Amino acid sequence: MEIKTYLNEQRQQVEKYLIDLVLEPVGTFSKHIESMRYSLFAGGKRIRPILCLAAAAAVDSKEDTFQRALPVGCALECIHTYSLIHDDLPAMDDDDLRRGKPTNHTVFGEAAAILAGDGLLTFAFDLLSGPVSAATPDSARIRIIQTIARAAGPLGMVGGQSLDMIYAGKLVGYDELRSIHRSKTGALITASVVSGAIVAGADEAQEEALKTYGDNIGLAFQIVDDLLDVEATTEQLGKPAGSDIKSDKVTYPSLFGKETSRTMAREAVQEALAALTLFDKQADPLRALANYIVERNK
Amino acid sequence: MEIKTYLNEQRQQVEKYLIDLVLEPVGTFSKHIESMRYSLFAGGKRIRPILCLAAAAAVDSKEDTFQRALPVGCALECIHTYSLIHDDLPAMDDDDLRRGKPTNHTVFGEAAAILAGDGLLTFAFDLLSGPVSAATPDSARIRIIQTIARAAGPLGMVGGQSLDMIYAGKLVGYDELRSIHRSKTGALITASVVSGAIVAGADEAQEEALKTYGDNIGLAFQIVDDLLDVEATTEQLGKPAGSDIKSDKVTYPSLFGKETSRTMAREAVQEALAALTLFDKQADPLRALANYIVERNK
Repeated sequence: MEIKTYLNEQRQQVEKYLIDLVLEPVGTFSKHIESMRYSLFAGGKRIRPILCLAAAAAVDSKEDTFQRALPVGCALECIHTYSLIHDDLPAMDDDDLRRGKPTNHTVFGEAAAILAGDGLLTFAFDLLSGPVSAATPDSARIRIIQTIARAAGPLGMVGGQSLDMIYAGKLVGYDELRSIHRSKTGALITASVVSGAIVAGADEAQEEALKTYGDNIGLAFQIVDDLLDVEATTEQLGKPAGSDIKSDKVTYPSLFGKETSRTMAREAVQEALAALTLFDKQADPLRALANYIVERNK
Repeated sequence: MEIKTYLNEQRQQVEKYLIDLVLEPVGTFSKHIESMRYSLFAGGKRIRPILCLAAAAAVDSKEDTFQRALPVGCALECIHTYSLIHDDLPAMDDDDLRRGKPTNHTVFGEAAAILAGDGLLTFAFDLLSGPVSAATPDSARIRIIQTIARAAGPLGMVGGQSLDMIYAGKLVGYDELRSIHRSKTGALITASVVSGAIVAGADEAQEEALKTYGDNIGLAFQIVDDLLDVEATTEQLGKPAGSDIKSDKVTYPSLFGKETSRTMAREAVQEALAALTLFDKQADPLRALANYIVERNK
């Protein structure tokens, strides 16, 4: 399959759904909603929703399943977007550019940006429990909410961002690097895949296999992110290249060198692919995604 | 009933449960968890969990129902606490004191305080979907999550805080004041009562009556808050008195004067009590709470 075509098609479906789904910027809360929408429609790659949709399709390729996976994917994108808005704040990484555009707080101010993040995080759980996801059985919805809340929470993404701040500028080893990555980036990527599995009614073996796939592509994704920060240009990244070095962050290339890091990313992708052996060609998008993650250049 | 004794007993039950429930500040994420716990155990009155428990008891006074309402109440308290941490930030109200103690960001720094809020908000949805609330039917859990996410989100509490920032220092009228209060404070108070009703298996009429009760005590609560800001001492409030005047905020007393504001609060309490006529003495705690809200001095 042609991965770029696939990604484009999926991204368009996700964005079409998101545009209809997310609150209109009118009425009493229009300013707040506008600030949420600004970051939500600022050119994200929609990797997490696409992973969720692809995992659901690997288990069950029916159109109905795809439709039920869409709101779950959009909730994941809301959570990812909130995390970027808060990470970019002056008190955190203090970034002015994200995906080539001014960050939320540089456009709307710091207070509005904090609230845009809070609003998106809360709205994600509104979607997962609201009318748009009513066609999925309640037991599956509860498991999806639990999977995502656990992955995004104090022992997951938020905890990871906290570690990232605590360790910034300090010499840390591989254990700490792994902890940061697993929680800050890996947990939500795995949750994207697993929640797609749950929405499609995966059995235990399928869910376990998809979890292994998610863990491994999450790792590969982060290693490649670290490599791109060293190798890519600012134009390619849409944010300043070399920012990890500037902020003295320990990364895969800084610990292992570029060659070994690239090998580690490829090995993780092999592990991810190996976990998919129990799926037939319905899992081909997941296979293509794994390869794309390690070969991408932004 | 003796309301102070009742409140003390309930508060102790909530805190005992919270202490057991919330993550231990050990291991990889100990710093982050410590910052969450700091604000969670900083002397809150636990009004929202107590309202949730009292509403549940009005519908069904069995011990099992009380036990199932506890995690819901604790989730509400996590959300309330996160909102206070974010409201106090330098970019928002820039407050140094809360309940007589240094605010989260003055102790842990701004980045950690933003993350403590994010962690508590996400953890609330973890509790509502996790093993601690597994004894409640999934259909009720989904409705509770929806009720709370809607009330706390962009059209509720977060939206209200956004309005509060936008209108600060501007001359606004009663309509804007009502919008701010309904969303910023009222929505989560109503959700506390309604989620208690749902966890206890209320029928439609009971749930509707409790919603009316919640809307009205939410209004009374906010009017009294405004009055206390003018009338109480800094020592009573645990935060600087007169801060609404200092920050040029429109309040009930500034629009209507103290006497009329107090009358409006009492009328709202009467409406709240009237909504409870279909309940027997099991709703006495709710009745006492309504009166307490308007008579309290902090």
